[in-house]
Amino acid sequence: MTAAAQTTTTTAPYDLGPAVELVSKEEGHRQPLAPEFVSLEDFSPLEVAYDFGKIRREDIEAGPRSIWRYKHLLPVPSNVEQHPNTDPGCTRLVRADNLAKALGVKRIWLKDDTGNPTHSFKDRVVAVALAAAREFGFKVLACPSTGNLANAVAAAAARAGWDSVVLVPSSLERAKVLMSAVYDGSLLAVDGNYDDVNRLATELAGEHEDWAFVNVNVRPYYSEGSKTLAFETAEQLGWRLPEQVVVPIASGSQLTKIDKGFNELTRTGLVEGSPYKIFGAQANGCSPVAEAFKNGRDMIQPVRPDTIARSLAIGAPADGPYVLDTVRRTGGAIEDVTDEEVVDGIRLLARTEGIFAETAGGVTVANAKKLIDTGQLDPDAETVLMITGDGLKTLDAVQDHVGPKATVKPTTDAVSEALGK
Amino acid sequence: MTAAAQTTTTTAPYDLGPAVELVSKEEGHRQPLAPEFVSLEDFSPLEVAYDFGKIRREDIEAGPRSIWRYKHLLPVPSNVEQHPNTDPGCTRLVRADNLAKALGVKRIWLKDDTGNPTHSFKDRVVAVALAAAREFGFKVLACPSTGNLANAVAAAAARAGWDSVVLVPSSLERAKVLMSAVYDGSLLAVDGNYDDVNRLATELAGEHEDWAFVNVNVRPYYSEGSKTLAFETAEQLGWRLPEQVVVPIASGSQLTKIDKGFNELTRTGLVEGSPYKIFGAQANGCSPVAEAFKNGRDMIQPVRPDTIARSLAIGAPADGPYVLDTVRRTGGAIEDVTDEEVVDGIRLLARTEGIFAETAGGVTVANAKKLIDTGQLDPDAETVLMITGDGLKTLDAVQDHVGPKATVKPTTDAVSEALGK
Repeated sequence: MTAAAQTTTTTAPYDLGPAVELVSKEEGHRQPLAPEFVSLEDFSPLEVAYDFGKIRREDIEAGPRSIWRYKHLLPVPSNVEQHPNTDPGCTRLVRADNLAKALGVKRIWLKDDTGNPTHSFKDRVVAVALAAAREFGFKVLACPSTGNLANAVAAAAARAGWDSVVLVPSSLERAKVLMSAVYDGSLLAVDGNYDDVNRLATELAGEHEDWAFVNVNVRPYYSEGSKTLAFETAEQLGWRLPEQVVVPIASGSQLTKIDKGFNELTRTGLVEGSPYKIFGAQANGCSPVAEAFKNGRDMIQPVRPDTIARSLAIGAPADGPYVLDTVRRTGGAIEDVTDEEVVDGIRLLARTEGIFAETAGGVTVANAKKLIDTGQLDPDAETVLMITGDGLKTLDAVQDHVGPKATVKPTTDAVSEALGK
Repeated sequence: MTAAAQTTTTTAPYDLGPAVELVSKEEGHRQPLAPEFVSLEDFSPLEVAYDFGKIRREDIEAGPRSIWRYKHLLPVPSNVEQHPNTDPGCTRLVRADNLAKALGVKRIWLKDDTGNPTHSFKDRVVAVALAAAREFGFKVLACPSTGNLANAVAAAAARAGWDSVVLVPSSLERAKVLMSAVYDGSLLAVDGNYDDVNRLATELAGEHEDWAFVNVNVRPYYSEGSKTLAFETAEQLGWRLPEQVVVPIASGSQLTKIDKGFNELTRTGLVEGSPYKIFGAQANGCSPVAEAFKNGRDMIQPVRPDTIARSLAIGAPADGPYVLDTVRRTGGAIEDVTDEEVVDGIRLLARTEGIFAETAGGVTVANAKKLIDTGQLDPDAETVLMITGDGLKTLDAVQDHVGPKATVKPTTDAVSEALGK
């Protein structure tokens, strides 16, 4: 790695910190850093390779209270924190004793990404994509999105003073549409599902070379942002790895990058290596990865999504095969749950820990329950659940299930009667 | 203070950290710490008095990343962080150069409380109220609310494993209703406006001695939580006070407590004292404090609220007279803006800084603009705007103003046509 890295560093015109080149995931072909996402050698996805050098815990701890404290582990310029960005990250890691008790396990931690600037983990990946895109000379930030990404891209572009082009399925939840539109970029509703919108974005990326589609042409950089979930979790646990992690699967990128993050922490000596299992969570209205896992297949059979967990409704998940690799290698599992269980998961989390998650969070909690009930998740091992988005964005999912106990006149008698006390 | 404090400390049965007694705001009558809110001597509100002792910056900086880092300045038990609570605070202080440029001023900072657990500053006051209520032996957390407080109380009670009784006007925004209900406490919709609901809560507090109404019978403790906005702002500025602050006014409590926070930082030597001006912001559909300020009156004339800024729609603001005192003493001013300006404020903030605030945030931004345009706010002095709640909770305010630029077929031609490029 070092020799190749030095060669590349000499010729590369970009400052992307420790990133030295792109490597194809299948056959390991190397190429210089650039806004490209597929290897023309083996047609597999490109991933960022690094020359990390010496990284010390103290330097990270002395850094900003955002993902930029990990800039020496990310493909971003060394002065990244000096440019306007949404500066996400450093969200809470909540010890969830009430939930653990309800599920009959020893210890659960919740990585609560509802506290990010636009209230989902997407702020992490978009912040990294914006930083890399700026270095590459782009001026427009774009994406196809199931909603959370749209919010994050539109907000980050506004803060940076960039134009944005955001494409969403026309059926998207009202909250996500309005929250994407309010930042005043170019929001387009597209007739079709997410896979249609994604295909359109890939075509547009070919036609508009000045548009940085965060999850298309700058995807190798973008996806590295998910590693910060792993970095923060380890640092917040006192610089150690958890034993079990449950991660929702949309494209599958987040799950594989959490694994990559744990590996890099170990490789750089920031944590002592220790075994961990990564579990995947899907809704069974869109569970192509869970299906492949359960049937022992290596290939993903695309599906037409039909679930209330719309932020996970990717029927042809790009990183599905890598998710299968990661989960099998670490000894985890992948499950899926019904929409009813998703709602139960949202309500269980809210009732026990006071955290209101979006449907993706319900998927994670419900799958954790199922994995425990079926003996796939060790109740005596410590488990981290990734709560990646906010309940305010998916109110439709709960509106028929929760509400006021009663509507009363403004008198104490009316209150006593309504509450039976 | 010290002598009285020692006497009180000896006899008081409660551990509320540096808090030693309650003092009436009008005539300074003292009484022991208890869940009481009005002085029976002069019928004025009770406020917490302290014996702070020596507090060092290093101890605060070494504390948790939540309001509990300031526990030695709050009426909470010394082991407060060991009990389940939502642990809010340490939200971002964002340097808003784009907004400053748009408004024609030198430097603006945004205290962005949308990052709190339930996405408003109310998590701060509720966390302190819960901690004090626990020490007093309560087991039920209750409130009347315009919405944000309902969310915060219901979430905090769930996390603590307490029952909650939350009373909201039946006209409340859907998002705030659902977000209050999901935590599975006792949510009641009340036929009436906030002032009716508030009156009902005061009656109920008299009947149910085991209910801690956070903003009624434990209000003296609750309201101290707003000081943490001042503490964090000063610490995030590098342990100094800002020159100008713009604060939205509902009951008026937050504004007066930010002033109290700055005073306490100065008094304890944590910052060097320096002059600052506090400005108040209202919507003109509910502007009784702005009216009194502009007319040079000391008394507040209650109004019947009619504004989209429902979280500020308190027609008879309890702390109104104290707001007038604070603003006049510091050399600030109080303005009010139209509902149209509120929406413009929300959109301006989103477009320039990528932050989506609720109507209260729109009120703050729009008033800042008005205060600048009318020469009341010094464009060369540094200004902090308090962004106290989240746009996802008040979508109705923007829904007729923002949306997709177009709905298109999934083709590149359709996109080009829609965007004109």
